[in-house]
Amino acid sequence: MKILVTGGAGFIGSTFCDSALERGHEVLAFDNMETGFEEFVSTAKENDRFQFIAGDIRELESCKKAFHNFSPDWVVHFAANADVRQGTDRPRRDLDFNTTGTWNVIEAARLAGCNNVLFSSTGSVYGEPKVFPTPEDCPFPVQTSLYAASKLAGEAMIAAYSAGYGMTGLVYRFVSIMGPRYTHGHVFDFVKALKKDPSTLHILGNGKQNKSYLHIMDLMEGLWCGIDNIKKGSFEVFNIGHDDSLLVDQSVDYITARLGISPKRTYGGGERGWVGDSPRIQLATEKLKKFGWTAKRSLKSAVEDTVDFLDSNPQFFEERD
Amino acid sequence: MKILVTGGAGFIGSTFCDSALERGHEVLAFDNMETGFEEFVSTAKENDRFQFIAGDIRELESCKKAFHNFSPDWVVHFAANADVRQGTDRPRRDLDFNTTGTWNVIEAARLAGCNNVLFSSTGSVYGEPKVFPTPEDCPFPVQTSLYAASKLAGEAMIAAYSAGYGMTGLVYRFVSIMGPRYTHGHVFDFVKALKKDPSTLHILGNGKQNKSYLHIMDLMEGLWCGIDNIKKGSFEVFNIGHDDSLLVDQSVDYITARLGISPKRTYGGGERGWVGDSPRIQLATEKLKKFGWTAKRSLKSAVEDTVDFLDSNPQFFEERD
Repeated sequence: MKILVTGGAGFIGSTFCDSALERGHEVLAFDNMETGFEEFVSTAKENDRFQFIAGDIRELESCKKAFHNFSPDWVVHFAANADVRQGTDRPRRDLDFNTTGTWNVIEAARLAGCNNVLFSSTGSVYGEPKVFPTPEDCPFPVQTSLYAASKLAGEAMIAAYSAGYGMTGLVYRFVSIMGPRYTHGHVFDFVKALKKDPSTLHILGNGKQNKSYLHIMDLMEGLWCGIDNIKKGSFEVFNIGHDDSLLVDQSVDYITARLGISPKRTYGGGERGWVGDSPRIQLATEKLKKFGWTAKRSLKSAVEDTVDFLDSNPQFFEERD
Repeated sequence: MKILVTGGAGFIGSTFCDSALERGHEVLAFDNMETGFEEFVSTAKENDRFQFIAGDIRELESCKKAFHNFSPDWVVHFAANADVRQGTDRPRRDLDFNTTGTWNVIEAARLAGCNNVLFSSTGSVYGEPKVFPTPEDCPFPVQTSLYAASKLAGEAMIAAYSAGYGMTGLVYRFVSIMGPRYTHGHVFDFVKALKKDPSTLHILGNGKQNKSYLHIMDLMEGLWCGIDNIKKGSFEVFNIGHDDSLLVDQSVDYITARLGISPKRTYGGGERGWVGDSPRIQLATEKLKKFGWTAKRSLKSAVEDTVDFLDSNPQFFEERD
């Protein structure tokens, strides 16, 4: 089938494009190249079932044109402002990218006659939950970051589109994803800092933040599982994450062991690394497991694959224009 | 104190302005006059503690200027696109008014140094709940209308502003409000239709939709209760509604009895009056009652006060430009 992937040149989006091509689908990647990378789609570009369009989800007209011309069966929407930590410094960004941008994407999909949308949301929408592991139908949460608020808004609009127009809405609440092409997040920051100075490492918070993560290839399998199984016209939300979790200090153990160094650690202190940081993330994934999915890769291997990728691709640490 | 009221010339906003003036506060009403009425603020305008500014919450710069100049202690935010039924015909409206508009309002408040925001949300954010009466922390709901999705987004952004900037965020989830100045909703539609043709009345859905409502003066008391009691810097969500409820058919009984007519009733059929209509709304209000609030007026009197107002003010049935 024809699949349009927003954020198709980013970490997760480009991996999904490759995976879709491998499964024989026709793929259009739509990316503004702000956090996407040319080299992530270089292999895909050799495939004649792949197209790339430079476009920004903040511009409805660009979306409408690209979506109309490609006429996808599914829109898989990854494009987002994904830096939760900048929320209070740039409070408009999350709204523009993740809320208005998501509306542009689903409206363009609808106008192009595409009836199926997959949306990458976040476990951060649970705020600071009281139930662990946190199920999809846990008590109505209170948002703690503009990032999560903007993603919740995206989920909600897709649910309303599904109810109002009969669209299939497939929402995943992700934990932090790791693996090859990972270019943003705490492992990225740590490896970058250690490349500059292997003798010390500063850690935001107390190092005890306890979070689930997931290997990108386990994510891919989970996304296909939903696409293959969701009832057309319905709206479903699935948590996706590993049953295991890591303390930030454990991540640092794995990173430094893989790099063969032993830096002195200093701590910012406090339970949270930044405003809106959730000290614990552990999602219940029974709902997706009923479709036969399960995570097959350990979190240790997820960290190691990430470190190996960053170690052999130092160009990603360079500041971009 | 100084209170800035968005939507200050509308049904609820203008009543709140009057109530704030009565309590001795200084009030600025901010309204784009799209669904507000000059005559709703005519009494307020005689008070020298009252100011009015024509402005649109969709325009950040207008908000910033007005908020900065007035420098309010509280922003009480009612301005909204409130017609849930038009959602799928005009899918961008809810996003522009209720989500982006709300962001503009809270950002303008923050930039003006105002630390306290009250937001009028809706019981519709519960979608079609499984628990009745529905408490604030019921299971994570699925949205069924763009209106509710856009209000949920507003709530979420206010929660994030409270977490990120230390603002007081006071959110109310309203049932449908009735009483004098009511100019929109099912009683309005019914009275309008009956004024044209008292012999028949067409009812959307099967007439069995069972919903709680609230008299505007009970709402006012509930809003002040929150303003007077909320801990500064915290974020709280309160349901507000009557413990009693009415079937649509019961509303029609009260309306027709008050008008002294007996129309033949016809029904659109189905449990829902329109896409996104929730067949049952009954909110648990224990949380607000702990602050000493309780609804004092019956739903019968709420309907009758509404009918009396509309009956003696037929000018509100005229189409506006």
